[in-house]
Amino acid sequence: MLQLYFFPMACSLSSRIALMEAGIEAQYHLAHIWTKKIVDDGSDFRGVSPKGAVPVLVLANGERLTESAAVLQYIADVKPKAGLAPSFGDPDRYRLQEWLSYIGAEIHKAFLFPTFWYKDDGSLAKPRARITQTLAVPAAHLAEREFLVGDRFTVADAHLTWALLLLRPAGLDIAQWPSLSAYLERMQARPAVREAVATEMALRKNLAA
Amino acid sequence: MLQLYFFPMACSLSSRIALMEAGIEAQYHLAHIWTKKIVDDGSDFRGVSPKGAVPVLVLANGERLTESAAVLQYIADVKPKAGLAPSFGDPDRYRLQEWLSYIGAEIHKAFLFPTFWYKDDGSLAKPRARITQTLAVPAAHLAEREFLVGDRFTVADAHLTWALLLLRPAGLDIAQWPSLSAYLERMQARPAVREAVATEMALRKNLAA
Ligand SMILES: N[C@@H](CCC(=O)N[C@@H](CS)C(=O)NCC(=O)O)C(=O)O
Ligand SMILES: N[C@@H](CCC(=O)N[C@@H](CS)C(=O)NCC(=O)O)C(=O)O
Repeated sequence: MLQLYFFPMACSLSSRIALMEAGIEAQYHLAHIWTKKIVDDGSDFRGVSPKGAVPVLVLANGERLTESAAVLQYIADVKPKAGLAPSFGDPDRYRLQEWLSYIGAEIHKAFLFPTFWYKDDGSLAKPRARITQTLAVPAAHLAEREFLVGDRFTVADAHLTWALLLLRPAGLDIAQWPSLSAYLERMQARPAVREAVATEMALRKNLAA
Repeated sequence: MLQLYFFPMACSLSSRIALMEAGIEAQYHLAHIWTKKIVDDGSDFRGVSPKGAVPVLVLANGERLTESAAVLQYIADVKPKAGLAPSFGDPDRYRLQEWLSYIGAEIHKAFLFPTFWYKDDGSLAKPRARITQTLAVPAAHLAEREFLVGDRFTVADAHLTWALLLLRPAGLDIAQWPSLSAYLERMQARPAVREAVATEMALRKNLAA
């Protein structure tokens, strides 16, 4: 069975959404990304992955795969019938990779990461100044489309859904981008998305308590 | 014929390296990423891609593909015989995607980008503090391996080669990571890499003059 190391509401949420959308059963382990402890047994998360970052997907053969763009494509390809990624050979597969890269590099690493990890110094001014221009790209794209790639939900939507959910805690009002706001509402109406988010929100509250 | 919009020594260098390693003829257009002008004819680079960032690959059908992770995989798949990416279905393809994501998100966007674009304020302290830990990952991996994925040069190596070439202008001495330093030397000994870098270094000097 696949195993996912996650931290509630961190970027590993998109991998959980993908697993649930595909109906793939998996084992979930909560890894605390600040303390680097695995919550189940208190062991060192760096023993699982030296990066100390979620998501980490443990494959059937025991190998560990990191990086959302790779983990999400792996999950999609485990169950091609779920249609979570255009198949290899379909030109849209590169569009999927283009969005996964944009979300992972430009939205996550260039904006969300500094916002949540570097709160206490001058590091935030420049990343914040860029975010409007960064979000204009998916906002324009989604003004006329229901999903990021083709005409169905893919793992790129799972990833963008996670990123957009973090805009509010990052201090941004998504209402500034009506097409993103409408998109996020559509995504959150999906049963798998709703369940994944509810599960992680509850776990996050417990951690804080 | 494929066309690549590039800026000399920017991240589009890895796409040029990939094209040259594969022996794919392409047309190259210099897009100035600060002024957003295409140098040939002075037209607006945002007309080619609203992101205003390189690389942009123009495909045979006229469509434009952005994001290094997608562009590099596309180039590799155009000429599978060149072996620049494990084929789809090979588990190593996910390792390739894992490295492309790590280089594009953790090295490029979390460190190189702030270094070159945000020089003038407090934004740099935190990204710089993280870079040692970030580079420890490829340094450990390459201590025992010649290439990032499998036993041959792939587009992941093209991308890492570019990133490592920027360490010096970013103010870091690669000698701190002997395995990375030896790796970069090996990569720079490859004729296609050497030619790609020489071409772009010359263009960069011209631009500065
Ligand atoms: N490039 C990675 C980013 C992974 C990442 O930044 N994970 C965060 C949570 S969203 C984390 O675990 N950070 C802990 C750390 O970097 O120390 C991906 O796309 O999966
Ligand atoms: N995530 C993109 C990053 C592209 C990027 O940042 N390109 C830089 C040069 S290395 C650029 O053109 N920047 C101009 C800008 O962002 O305004 C990729 O991996 O290709």
